[in-house]
Amino acid sequence: MFSVTVRDHMMIAHSLQGEVFGPAQRLHGATYVVDATFRRATLDADGIVLDIGRAAEVLREVVAELGYRNLDEEPALAGMNTTTEELARVVADRLADAFGAQGLDSLLVTLRESHVAWASYERPL
Amino acid sequence: MFSVTVRDHMMIAHSLQGEVFGPAQRLHGATYVVDATFRRATLDADGIVLDIGRAAEVLREVVAELGYRNLDEEPALAGMNTTTEELARVVADRLADAFGAQGLDSLLVTLRESHVAWASYERPL
Amino acid sequence: MFSVTVRDHMMIAHSLQGEVFGPAQRLHGATYVVDATFRRATLDADGIVLDIGRAAEVLREVVAELGYRNLDEEPALAGMNTTTEELARVVADRLADAFGAQGLDSLLVTLRESHVAWASYERPL
Amino acid sequence: MFSVTVRDHMMIAHSLQGEVFGPAQRLHGATYVVDATFRRATLDADGIVLDIGRAAEVLREVVAELGYRNLDEEPALAGMNTTTEELARVVADRLADAFGAQGLDSLLVTLRESHVAWASYERPL
Amino acid sequence: MFSVTVRDHMMIAHSLQGEVFGPAQRLHGATYVVDATFRRATLDADGIVLDIGRAAEVLREVVAELGYRNLDEEPALAGMNTTTEELARVVADRLADAFGAQGLDSLLVTLRESHVAWASYERPL
Amino acid sequence: MFSVTVRDHMMIAHSLQGEVFGPAQRLHGATYVVDATFRRATLDADGIVLDIGRAAEVLREVVAELGYRNLDEEPALAGMNTTTEELARVVADRLADAFGAQGLDSLLVTLRESHVAWASYERPL
Repeated sequence: MFSVTVRDHMMIAHSLQGEVFGPAQRLHGATYVVDATFRRATLDADGIVLDIGRAAEVLREVVAELGYRNLDEEPALAGMNTTTEELARVVADRLADAFGAQGLDSLLVTLRESHVAWASYERPL
Repeated sequence: MFSVTVRDHMMIAHSLQGEVFGPAQRLHGATYVVDATFRRATLDADGIVLDIGRAAEVLREVVAELGYRNLDEEPALAGMNTTTEELARVVADRLADAFGAQGLDSLLVTLRESHVAWASYERPL
Repeated sequence: MFSVTVRDHMMIAHSLQGEVFGPAQRLHGATYVVDATFRRATLDADGIVLDIGRAAEVLREVVAELGYRNLDEEPALAGMNTTTEELARVVADRLADAFGAQGLDSLLVTLRESHVAWASYERPL
Repeated sequence: MFSVTVRDHMMIAHSLQGEVFGPAQRLHGATYVVDATFRRATLDADGIVLDIGRAAEVLREVVAELGYRNLDEEPALAGMNTTTEELARVVADRLADAFGAQGLDSLLVTLRESHVAWASYERPL
Repeated sequence: MFSVTVRDHMMIAHSLQGEVFGPAQRLHGATYVVDATFRRATLDADGIVLDIGRAAEVLREVVAELGYRNLDEEPALAGMNTTTEELARVVADRLADAFGAQGLDSLLVTLRESHVAWASYERPL
Repeated sequence: MFSVTVRDHMMIAHSLQGEVFGPAQRLHGATYVVDATFRRATLDADGIVLDIGRAAEVLREVVAELGYRNLDEEPALAGMNTTTEELARVVADRLADAFGAQGLDSLLVTLRESHVAWASYERPL
């Protein structure tokens, strides 16, 4: 199995609903360093998993749609607790929509919220 | 599949038994930067894998029980070669005891012993 | 010259005033990974720059006062553009107030806002 | 499942064939920071996955055979587009040849080409 | 004193002249992760050292002029041993030309060639 | 001003004397990731600060003399509290002895003891 990963980041404000979140129930924010990993069983005719330049470009578009925003007011995320886990899924699903399968097997998205905590979501393509 | 990871560290002394360890047969030590990854197929009602605050707290307790000690003299580790691999298992098993399953699927513990070497142990929950 | 550095982090929401900030004029947020470096020409009688445990504790208190907040509504920061540079100064000044000189020469605070951008402020003690 | 990882690096020149590579069709180069991860279901009698010293030594030999070279002129790689993915496979296959199975289950090789992009190849042993 | 740093990278081929370079006398290559640090005694009216967006843009232009090239054939570098140290100076001088002083005091450029080696050049502005 | 840095590491056991050290008064250990930075105002005729291969080799020798040992029993360190700060000085002084000035201006040694704490010592050459 092969994989290729590209990294970008987004800076957002949000608040989280539920006592379990303690002080994170208040409006605060995060930088998410986002790693998108594309997996494929065999390489294509060019010897690659996918065009890494296009992967970086699409990832940049996806994080640009979320970044520099207060996620509490994003209509597309209404009713969702925008935890790191949920945002990893949102990013992965949007990347999956943009790429389609094109021979890829799965996609793993990791959001690093600090030097001591991160979350991931993996899905088939 | 979702996952959440928290990071902490511990500083220990130990020696390793066996010719394969070369100079590490002498009493020496290590800082282990410890990453604990909790995996779960679906998120709970709060949109999380687990309470990351509690995960960090329990990890801190587990590394505090091992840290600032000479592991050669720890009764709980008697008869064990305290390699990075074995210590990854000890940390994972203690975390598993503290958490129980509570909907989690598996647990991966990585101990980084330097900028050029690390070891992991993964187990179901 | 000796130095000791401790690292912590804070997660905040804010917006920045001024056309130069482009999309960062909107309410958004950041994780700042905060490095506080204390400098001293000679070591004390214990062979240290300062008590690293107390340094970590005071840094934790300083970031706790800022973290999990919308800085646009913090009275103590009213009228300030809370850029990474300004926040580095705020953190440094609060650390300086907490520590006093006690033989230290200077203090350097670095706030990392992503994997590709950071800012620092250095001041005497 | 246990694993052990060792890290080394190699610095190479090459060019890539195919329009998808854009400016990377020109002769250029890369530092690949190489992580080799060895997986094994149970530990051996010494409490390890494998002799980490020997793993580091063999990895060093493998990267030394490729490093400080123009890969466009390497007979062993003739006719191959030396993408990061393909090179991950080359390194993994050479490590597999050097180690044999000796109880190991699989091998994962990751080549980091920058702070924002990397590729991996995983194979059984 | 304040500073702001932005990070980018470039991938180049080159060879080095002189016995001291050993195998690096052969044509090979490197990824340089480039950190550009701008220093300024006081902040401007917006509370910043400089427009970080423009800093990132100019750094990208400078590394794009060098990247995906064989530096042995670059007319602008003819007669220069393109060591990491020399390239740090080239990048710094080109950034200085692009920015001018505009209130800045100095500029530090660091080129990381691997996880175990890097070089820097600092100059006034 | 130019600089070149090389990185290595050492794994040691020790204990620290003094109430300020709390649990670190017990025998424990550390991995120190060691960065040695050599500074020089101008480059030599080869376009370098120093032979980076020899710098790495000498650093390896210095850390090998300290590593895989219990520093409490090292005659050369008798009577010294082997704090991170003191060990940074020991490493720097030994590097200085091995190199001499040879045109170098100063030397900075940083010992990283974990992902959240490190210490440095800088001296002229």
